[in-house]
Amino acid sequence: MADFAAPPLRPFSIRLDRSSLELLPAGPVLTRRLSDLEGLFADEAAWRADVDNGDPIVYTVASSPVPETATELPQSITRIRPGDVAGELYFTKGHMHPVAEGEIYLGLEGEGGLLLFDGTDIEFLEITPDRIGYIPPGWAHRSVNVGSNDDYSFLAVYPGGAGHDYGWVLEHGFGARVYAGAAGAELRSYPQPALTLG
Amino acid sequence: MADFAAPPLRPFSIRLDRSSLELLPAGPVLTRRLSDLEGLFADEAAWRADVDNGDPIVYTVASSPVPETATELPQSITRIRPGDVAGELYFTKGHMHPVAEGEIYLGLEGEGGLLLFDGTDIEFLEITPDRIGYIPPGWAHRSVNVGSNDDYSFLAVYPGGAGHDYGWVLEHGFGARVYAGAAGAELRSYPQPALTLG
Repeated sequence: MADFAAPPLRPFSIRLDRSSLELLPAGPVLTRRLSDLEGLFADEAAWRADVDNGDPIVYTVASSPVPETATELPQSITRIRPGDVAGELYFTKGHMHPVAEGEIYLGLEGEGGLLLFDGTDIEFLEITPDRIGYIPPGWAHRSVNVGSNDDYSFLAVYPGGAGHDYGWVLEHGFGARVYAGAAGAELRSYPQPALTLG
Repeated sequence: MADFAAPPLRPFSIRLDRSSLELLPAGPVLTRRLSDLEGLFADEAAWRADVDNGDPIVYTVASSPVPETATELPQSITRIRPGDVAGELYFTKGHMHPVAEGEIYLGLEGEGGLLLFDGTDIEFLEITPDRIGYIPPGWAHRSVNVGSNDDYSFLAVYPGGAGHDYGWVLEHGFGARVYAGAAGAELRSYPQPALTLG
């Protein structure tokens, strides 16, 4: 697997390949299967059954070689497959930046949702091609594929020193879960009762 | 004119409008005419004549409301008109980040060049749609429209605290100038003799 480049970097150009959904030259590619998302879906039994039944890929993250170190500005393309666990739509693990810095997501294909949570408030943004979701400092963020048949893919650009705190999510949750509803994506609170929609 | 939003920002979505080349909702829009680029073109007399003859717009920079303050990640679309001053292709003023942080340019339309200079070395990257130019910390950067008839536009994403040092360019130059040549863009050294091409 390709690795991140070691600083100091020289200027170089990167191709955003919309068919392969890679950044070329390529950096590391991360693949998350359903088993990697243990403890995150509401319906634990349904999650376990799907893991035992093929453990599908939920998403991949393809980075450029620009490293995740302070003062650099790395990029990656996340591609989330369509699917759900007992109605809860496939999502990324989600994280908080331990260093409070902003990030952007630019929609490339499909229909996505960007769920944000600052520990108190929830926001849910629809992301489609050429739509940028702005993630301010201090907001945990998780992406969801809200399309029923197609992949949802987006370009992320983020400060290399911001970091990824996944533990924050296990501790605080995300304020809401996203389900396939009759009229599109539907937000429900942790653990279950109805919640004001985004 | 729209202004930058005041922190703290809440999450929001921004539309990248490829026909108007705006980010919507809109932040400030900057317009640079030829007269704003005093002292930057090699041929001062030709520059003066063009300023006196209509003072054309050379480029515009349309920002989103995400402010240029530390920990935020602002974005803008720069649109450079086709044109030249005595053969020297239209360019942006160019700047160095006083806080050494990286930046990316994503090509949206037309054919551009990204000229980079760290005070010693020169790099020149071709930027076309879906091509990302990576600007590492410590490299001054200037964009050039190398297409003969069309606008060149790109999306910039940059750390809000990086800043813009235009004086660095007046002091150090850019190592090279970009001219319309028989076989495309041609780099020439400051002030004139031939130079190794990028």
